[in-house]
Amino acid sequence: MAVYNPPLDEMRFMLNDVFDAPSFWQSNEKLNHVDMDTVNMVLEEMAKLSKNVLLPVNRSGDEEGAKYLGDGKVSTPEGFKEAYNQYAEAGWIGLGGDPEYGGQGFPKMVTMLTEEMVFTTNQSLALYPNLTVGATLCLLASGSEEQKQTYLEKLYTGEWSGTMCLTEPHAGTDLGIIKTKAVPQGDGSYAISGTKIFITGGEHDLTDNIIHLVLAKTPDAPEGSKGISLFVVPKFIVNDDGSLGERNTVAAGSIEHKMGIKGSATCVMNFDDAKGWMVGAENTGLASMFIMMNYERVTMGLQGLGGTELAYQNAAAYALERGQGRSDTQIQSPEKPADSIIHHADVRRMLLNARANAEASRCFAMYVAKQLDEAKYSTDPEAAKAAASRVALLTPIAKAFLTDKALEATVDCQQVLGGHGSGREWGMEQIVRDTRIAQIYEGANGIQALDLLGRKIARNGGKYMENFLAEIREFIGGMQAEHGIKQATLDAADTIETLTKTVLANIGERKSEINGCAVDYLHATGYLCYAFMFAMMVEAAHNKDGAFYANKLKLADFFVGRILPRIHAHAEMVKTGSEPLMAFDLDYFTAEVS
Amino acid sequence: MAVYNPPLDEMRFMLNDVFDAPSFWQSNEKLNHVDMDTVNMVLEEMAKLSKNVLLPVNRSGDEEGAKYLGDGKVSTPEGFKEAYNQYAEAGWIGLGGDPEYGGQGFPKMVTMLTEEMVFTTNQSLALYPNLTVGATLCLLASGSEEQKQTYLEKLYTGEWSGTMCLTEPHAGTDLGIIKTKAVPQGDGSYAISGTKIFITGGEHDLTDNIIHLVLAKTPDAPEGSKGISLFVVPKFIVNDDGSLGERNTVAAGSIEHKMGIKGSATCVMNFDDAKGWMVGAENTGLASMFIMMNYERVTMGLQGLGGTELAYQNAAAYALERGQGRSDTQIQSPEKPADSIIHHADVRRMLLNARANAEASRCFAMYVAKQLDEAKYSTDPEAAKAAASRVALLTPIAKAFLTDKALEATVDCQQVLGGHGSGREWGMEQIVRDTRIAQIYEGANGIQALDLLGRKIARNGGKYMENFLAEIREFIGGMQAEHGIKQATLDAADTIETLTKTVLANIGERKSEINGCAVDYLHATGYLCYAFMFAMMVEAAHNKDGAFYANKLKLADFFVGRILPRIHAHAEMVKTGSEPLMAFDLDYFTAEVS
Repeated sequence: MAVYNPPLDEMRFMLNDVFDAPSFWQSNEKLNHVDMDTVNMVLEEMAKLSKNVLLPVNRSGDEEGAKYLGDGKVSTPEGFKEAYNQYAEAGWIGLGGDPEYGGQGFPKMVTMLTEEMVFTTNQSLALYPNLTVGATLCLLASGSEEQKQTYLEKLYTGEWSGTMCLTEPHAGTDLGIIKTKAVPQGDGSYAISGTKIFITGGEHDLTDNIIHLVLAKTPDAPEGSKGISLFVVPKFIVNDDGSLGERNTVAAGSIEHKMGIKGSATCVMNFDDAKGWMVGAENTGLASMFIMMNYERVTMGLQGLGGTELAYQNAAAYALERGQGRSDTQIQSPEKPADSIIHHADVRRMLLNARANAEASRCFAMYVAKQLDEAKYSTDPEAAKAAASRVALLTPIAKAFLTDKALEATVDCQQVLGGHGSGREWGMEQIVRDTRIAQIYEGANGIQALDLLGRKIARNGGKYMENFLAEIREFIGGMQAEHGIKQATLDAADTIETLTKTVLANIGERKSEINGCAVDYLHATGYLCYAFMFAMMVEAAHNKDGAFYANKLKLADFFVGRILPRIHAHAEMVKTGSEPLMAFDLDYFTAEVS
Repeated sequence: MAVYNPPLDEMRFMLNDVFDAPSFWQSNEKLNHVDMDTVNMVLEEMAKLSKNVLLPVNRSGDEEGAKYLGDGKVSTPEGFKEAYNQYAEAGWIGLGGDPEYGGQGFPKMVTMLTEEMVFTTNQSLALYPNLTVGATLCLLASGSEEQKQTYLEKLYTGEWSGTMCLTEPHAGTDLGIIKTKAVPQGDGSYAISGTKIFITGGEHDLTDNIIHLVLAKTPDAPEGSKGISLFVVPKFIVNDDGSLGERNTVAAGSIEHKMGIKGSATCVMNFDDAKGWMVGAENTGLASMFIMMNYERVTMGLQGLGGTELAYQNAAAYALERGQGRSDTQIQSPEKPADSIIHHADVRRMLLNARANAEASRCFAMYVAKQLDEAKYSTDPEAAKAAASRVALLTPIAKAFLTDKALEATVDCQQVLGGHGSGREWGMEQIVRDTRIAQIYEGANGIQALDLLGRKIARNGGKYMENFLAEIREFIGGMQAEHGIKQATLDAADTIETLTKTVLANIGERKSEINGCAVDYLHATGYLCYAFMFAMMVEAAHNKDGAFYANKLKLADFFVGRILPRIHAHAEMVKTGSEPLMAFDLDYFTAEVS
């Protein structure tokens, strides 16, 4: 079975050394109930659960997959239900939930770390409770008091699960053109009809009820995204006393057969005059959904981190064991026919690429989590607003850059295993297949990049980025450590500053400039973010004793010399801009008919 | 089913416009039997076969996979046998074979193009005849006249197939430590015993006999790679009259369950005192195998090209059809709720990245093929030697760079399809899974990079590269076209010249420098090669009329501005060198125990 040692030391390094979370919590009156002893226990419990319960059904879950049994029924792979029950019964789904409705009120900085372990050990299983958490956030933000009372507690306990029903066969990125209809019934309920696709956990055998949050249009709704409302549509109608009543007319028509996350049921959901109730005000459905999605998109970055962490640990274990050839420096194991491949610099290059990505992405996720907590819990409106702006800027990077780098990292780790990397038996190829989806769903990474460059940069003339660059420069200026990461980060900040001005200047004359530059701009800024994270890690480690801390400085050296130079390639490509993309006539893309 | 229109116009552009193959053939007395009319017919026939016969069983072959039936038996997916028979009966396996033994004697410049179509339409099925071709090359180069007479014709007709049995459970990259034994029996035969793994086509139901070429050690062989001999071990012993005799004691023990190329049977082969005969001289087995592998490694690059071509065509077709959002420039389809996504610059970026890679890699494969033909058929020993040196330099790039860029390109094309890119139904995820193996087998890409920087650069002090750079500069200097690719290519050549000197200077003091820089050096040189290819395509196209040629110039613009800048990132990483990789103690890579 796959190796996994939960990186608790790394997590404590984040909380204690890099972000000084205990002080942050103490200084915030809504978070001062959180202390490091409790958090340590939380992390240790999840370490056990993820390693001993979730990981053991990861590969078998992939081999068996979720199955459509006909007649609207879907089964999860063997062992998923037992693992889910342990997960739910220990209260993990409500860990970050609102205490008023049965949640445990832990900040995102903590749930981020527990979620990492879940995504590391079982990406498919992780998605069921993950979608439930998304649904609770949505209901909490936009639901009526009655809706919160009806659904939240059962969702927090995991007795029920949640879904988000957005995509339709003809409408994915472009939700403005959805066709699902919601007709008012005069009793406060609506009759929902339409077909939704790619619905994660739309049907399964893990819970007694499934609470669908569905985007639909009321009869006289305005066209486009301004005419979308949000509805809650339970699989079983909930009676006034909280018991389950009649079966609603929503059912799975089939499930997708996919490249990865095969244990996660991705359903086609048919709504046939299903009974639903509006959540929030009419025609504000997309906004309600995005409140939740912005909170959850960071979590998708964690899926990438999870894949990378598991791939790294297993590739490193293989590289330490596998003998092949001799070290370039000197024979290491004269008693054996070959030295272990960990002595080959190129094997280390692949492993360190994955590890540097894992550590930078964990740090970045924690940085964004701290801003999310600040925005949510701060009693200082200015501080909350500033944090919210920072979150807005960095969320698309956290989702897209982390998952793009994760695919690269998992592919590198797979490569370390040579032919065995391709074999299902070794589990590495599953990690690649599972991780791939994180670049696609929850807003494809190209869409994240448009969000960054369009909404978060161009729409405010680069102001969010200016503020972020100022923070980075201030931090570097105040660093006590002497390390190459300082100048490298300042240079990267200059690169992004210049680049942002260049793009903003080009937007006026080139209508496709944002669209054509967005992904490379996101990657360039992603490398700056990682540089900033390594600077924070170096500052936290430089004056402490022991190999753990010394290695942080070495990994930062590796990052500066062997990863960060890519920022220049992306910057150059952004400077080129959109013109070479738009120079072709449409029929260039039509396949030649021979 | 997947879209595929064989790119015959692109192929003719290569043969006629870029490389002027007809003149090349005419001027060579061993190739002047080849003319463009015949070649056109050959390409058109393969276009039909690949599209109408190979492609239709591509996805079903993936779904069903090759199966181990027990008792040494392996079945290929339904339809493979019929498709293989059509392929074999039309004479494709012997297309480039030696006419003296029943081959058709076509040059590599032609077989490269037919092989591209085979790899485009069915990577799994392609491997069965591909390994057979490899075996014929090996026998032709090193076999006795009797062995050639016994095996070649039946291999060319495809009545029998061939394998290469190199890897053992403990020995992949490091073949010097193989354990398979070959004990002389006094009658000219050897008893071969051992276990070989990852044997493509080791067992299947396509042919009457399977001819294994096996690396093994004779009883008193020297240690390491100097003590390896090559043996031919037929599944059925061939009688003197050419009929099949007794069943040899070699059998499949199981097959691998893999990420991709599931229709290709990857076998564990057990040799139990199997009867074999030595091919070539004792202890020269590795050299014999490498003669063939160098010829075939270019072909592995074609697997990447094939994956890219199919992914591109299908992603482009999807992008033209799929409506989502509106064009940034102006509404394109007012009668529809959304414009097709081909109008989005970011979608074009992904498509053009794939297309530019496909065209550059086809051109590069053809360039190497021309050098291979020159080396093989030239009657001028100096010209042949120069071509062989060029082939030696470029082979690792052709294998590794083409397949690395192919994974990137297929992933980009998959991304164009959004959620559908992940679904098995659409076929894109299969292309990604199938293409991935090409980076791993036939010498993992990291090993190719070591071959480039170690053997082909460092061992001759960069002389091969100097000669190549001189050719590039001479070509650019003689160009009639005015285009940005000229300066860009010269700059790239300067970058590689400086970089080569830097690496060579660092090798002395850093023992791991070659190993630690090889992959990034290979990528940097790969981009130079692609730049050179685009320069050749621009020169061939600039003075001709029509959109086809005009688009070549536009694609070169895209390459210069949106792909080539990556060369600088790889160059910077090479300059950093191996030190940050080797700075870590071994236990850094041992998983933390929590």
